[in-house]
Amino acid sequence: MKFCSDCGGSIALRVPLGDDRERFVCETCDAIHYVNPRVIVGCLPVYEDKVLMCKRAIEPRHGYWTLPAGFMENGETTEQGAARETWEEARAQVRNLHLYRVFDVPYISQVYMFYRCEVEDGLFGVGPESLESGLYGEDEIPWDNIAFPVVKKALRAYFEDRRRDEYPVAVETITFSKPRKP
Amino acid sequence: MKFCSDCGGSIALRVPLGDDRERFVCETCDAIHYVNPRVIVGCLPVYEDKVLMCKRAIEPRHGYWTLPAGFMENGETTEQGAARETWEEARAQVRNLHLYRVFDVPYISQVYMFYRCEVEDGLFGVGPESLESGLYGEDEIPWDNIAFPVVKKALRAYFEDRRRDEYPVAVETITFSKPRKP
Repeated sequence: MKFCSDCGGSIALRVPLGDDRERFVCETCDAIHYVNPRVIVGCLPVYEDKVLMCKRAIEPRHGYWTLPAGFMENGETTEQGAARETWEEARAQVRNLHLYRVFDVPYISQVYMFYRCEVEDGLFGVGPESLESGLYGEDEIPWDNIAFPVVKKALRAYFEDRRRDEYPVAVETITFSKPRKP
Repeated sequence: MKFCSDCGGSIALRVPLGDDRERFVCETCDAIHYVNPRVIVGCLPVYEDKVLMCKRAIEPRHGYWTLPAGFMENGETTEQGAARETWEEARAQVRNLHLYRVFDVPYISQVYMFYRCEVEDGLFGVGPESLESGLYGEDEIPWDNIAFPVVKKALRAYFEDRRRDEYPVAVETITFSKPRKP
């Protein structure tokens, strides 16, 4: 951040009076521009004993498999956002949403919220950000080609919980680990 | 948003290519400035049969009672943020945090996350954003002077759940209602 979005003045990084951390502050109009974590909302959409997954058509992780998820938008609820992303990426309508996993990813200032839900009538398609999509059972999931750690963790937990048919909500923290060399 | 924070150019509200909603776009450098919901993290800190509350020393709702909560910061987890706010506002150390309530407040693009937790040794104080703080039992809480609907809902749910000693996580949406006239 170099310029003030209110007045166009130049921005300095300093600790405002009464605060205890550096903020982007305008040197002309004194506006403080806070930068906060972003929420990523997604679904773990289930039909019969399979989970709906998408192969990513965009970076990062083009060609890898994911659960439908994306940045929460202003004016929507987390549940609405999760359902919207599932429509956008996998052309599926979902119902009966239950919060299932929260993942804190502090090193990139993101919070993921995944909802467990049902795919209406088992119908799905391929949205513009996906190369393909499909319903996969536990043994069919491309475990070695999952896009993000949060996706693999949510899927592993789901299939584990399904053995007991109990799905407690859990919060987990993802810590930074260097990507493996291909 | 009037000026681009990257180049200082002027900002227009338009739908970028491949998007489906209006964004703040720079007319000079084409940077897209996304605006997303903010996360507010807080605690419902318990000691014996009482809950730790603070009387607000700041606007909005100066002089009304709240649970310790505030904007999540970059680089922290939701749990760390909730504990930090409890220290800042009520000078209490907390432990044994469990996610308890998520409140979507879409009309102001906020997501609240409250953690149920214990107050270490029952010790607390008064932070700079509070006028006073205290441990209150269900019958002692100033129910008519609670700062925000999310606080009242979290407290009501907690005392209800305590009768069964079961505290399931729940997600609720707060809809806009006109404030009552004093």
